[in-house]
Amino acid sequence: MNQTETEFAGLAAALTNAGKDVEAALDRWLPAPAGLQGRVQEAMRYAVLAGGKRLRPFLLMQSAALFGVPSERTLRAAAAIEAVHTYSLVHDDLPCMDDDDLRRGQPTAHRAFDEATAVLAGDALLTIAFEILAGAETHPLGDVRAKLVSELAGAGGTLGMIGGQMIDIEAPVHAFGVDEVIQLQRLKTGALFEFCCVAGPILGEAGAEHERRLRDYARDFGLVFQITDDLLDVLSTTEKTGKAVGKDAEQGKATLVSWRGVDAARAQAKELALRAADTVASYGSGATLLQALPLYLLNREN
Amino acid sequence: MNQTETEFAGLAAALTNAGKDVEAALDRWLPAPAGLQGRVQEAMRYAVLAGGKRLRPFLLMQSAALFGVPSERTLRAAAAIEAVHTYSLVHDDLPCMDDDDLRRGQPTAHRAFDEATAVLAGDALLTIAFEILAGAETHPLGDVRAKLVSELAGAGGTLGMIGGQMIDIEAPVHAFGVDEVIQLQRLKTGALFEFCCVAGPILGEAGAEHERRLRDYARDFGLVFQITDDLLDVLSTTEKTGKAVGKDAEQGKATLVSWRGVDAARAQAKELALRAADTVASYGSGATLLQALPLYLLNREN
Repeated sequence: MNQTETEFAGLAAALTNAGKDVEAALDRWLPAPAGLQGRVQEAMRYAVLAGGKRLRPFLLMQSAALFGVPSERTLRAAAAIEAVHTYSLVHDDLPCMDDDDLRRGQPTAHRAFDEATAVLAGDALLTIAFEILAGAETHPLGDVRAKLVSELAGAGGTLGMIGGQMIDIEAPVHAFGVDEVIQLQRLKTGALFEFCCVAGPILGEAGAEHERRLRDYARDFGLVFQITDDLLDVLSTTEKTGKAVGKDAEQGKATLVSWRGVDAARAQAKELALRAADTVASYGSGATLLQALPLYLLNREN
Repeated sequence: MNQTETEFAGLAAALTNAGKDVEAALDRWLPAPAGLQGRVQEAMRYAVLAGGKRLRPFLLMQSAALFGVPSERTLRAAAAIEAVHTYSLVHDDLPCMDDDDLRRGQPTAHRAFDEATAVLAGDALLTIAFEILAGAETHPLGDVRAKLVSELAGAGGTLGMIGGQMIDIEAPVHAFGVDEVIQLQRLKTGALFEFCCVAGPILGEAGAEHERRLRDYARDFGLVFQITDDLLDVLSTTEKTGKAVGKDAEQGKATLVSWRGVDAARAQAKELALRAADTVASYGSGATLLQALPLYLLNREN
């Protein structure tokens, strides 16, 4: 293996480990199905423990490690962001939204349970994310916990993820240009990535300058993620991704790939990945995996 | 007018004023519809500014007034609880849940907009509630803001409101006894009332003993609210309530009224209302409206 291959192998192993850690944490902090409302608690676990790349918790853990944040605190924020990400998937998959049957290679929550339970399970995952963040174990300072709550609510709201989802739903009826597609993606997927990356300096009380730098990294990373996701939708198979593919074109949605073509989109993703890596270079060897991740995504298969 | 009638007239006026104050606050803190995601922001405003009794903000304001909490702080918590209450109505009204066409005398959010927008608007109202609570203007101490977030998330989660809604959905297939009906109602509607009442002593940093007393009041109040709500469902008309009636019986749902009969349910509600009033009697004249409210509900028409 050359140096890049070695780094990618290390990255893959680190991603797997982070995934295991956050799953164990979620298993610990999600309510055990009990009593008459056990069904919704089962659905929460079904959705969130179904696997997945766990990219967001990984980003958060890597960002927190730069500032020496104790692992229990990091894990709580990582569990919260994965709960929010999963809630968004559960609601986006609903018949009235994307109407998807498969997610992470398994039946979506409303298929495995029913629509009402899926709506409630999504609501409950969003709710528990804030409960975890605000809990005393997340950080001894209330100001830090409240700041994390504010950041996550901002990233998840109508000026963030929900706004992006609303735009995405309306996308087929608009003739979006490149700028609007970038804005959509910055909100829909980018805002949560920003939360993951700034959570580190917030938990580490590192100050505004570090928050700014990690946010810059997150913005470039988010676009790399979205472009490579769009490329997958065009080029890959359901077998590899574990979800429906070819849906963007079918629905007439503009993406950076449909706008610029496969080769130009790939070139742009590479450029952004290199810039993201450069943004965190000054953190030295502690940032190796953060630097490798966007480059790794250029070759993603799911 | 006798003394009771005078008190009730004062209460009605105070409820109206509290409603106006919280609507003005929500109007100020909800995002103005703008940009490509304006539709979901419009739906949030449509749902939350459509009127309603504003009982929860009123309870919160009365509870906060006992401890001299400044009005701006109180209003932020009141706006947050009304946003959460409204999100729960928007999601409960969805076709996959109660499938209601009318709410507060107007088309439900998914009828006025569409299902996808209603799901997202509910999600966004829940999200912004936490953003408002965690904001620095809510209280100078981060610990207080984080505690409010924890309390609201607990009250709104699967051990609170969402759990109650899950049980309610499954209710028709169970043969519920009185204990299970009380548990359902304590979760589904009671948990948020508890938040409203303990938010006062939390904002006022009054300590655990006051929190306990207000929580006791809230539990009795919540049952009075639910019993009188069930009585309305049996006895009133859509014209008066602004929503569908007779649905519990139609769906075969057990309520305290169906279990005990109208007269016994009414008698129990009165007993609980008197006990609630007694619980806060020691706060003196500042608690007059809190004392009157559960008694007022005994004669509610909507």
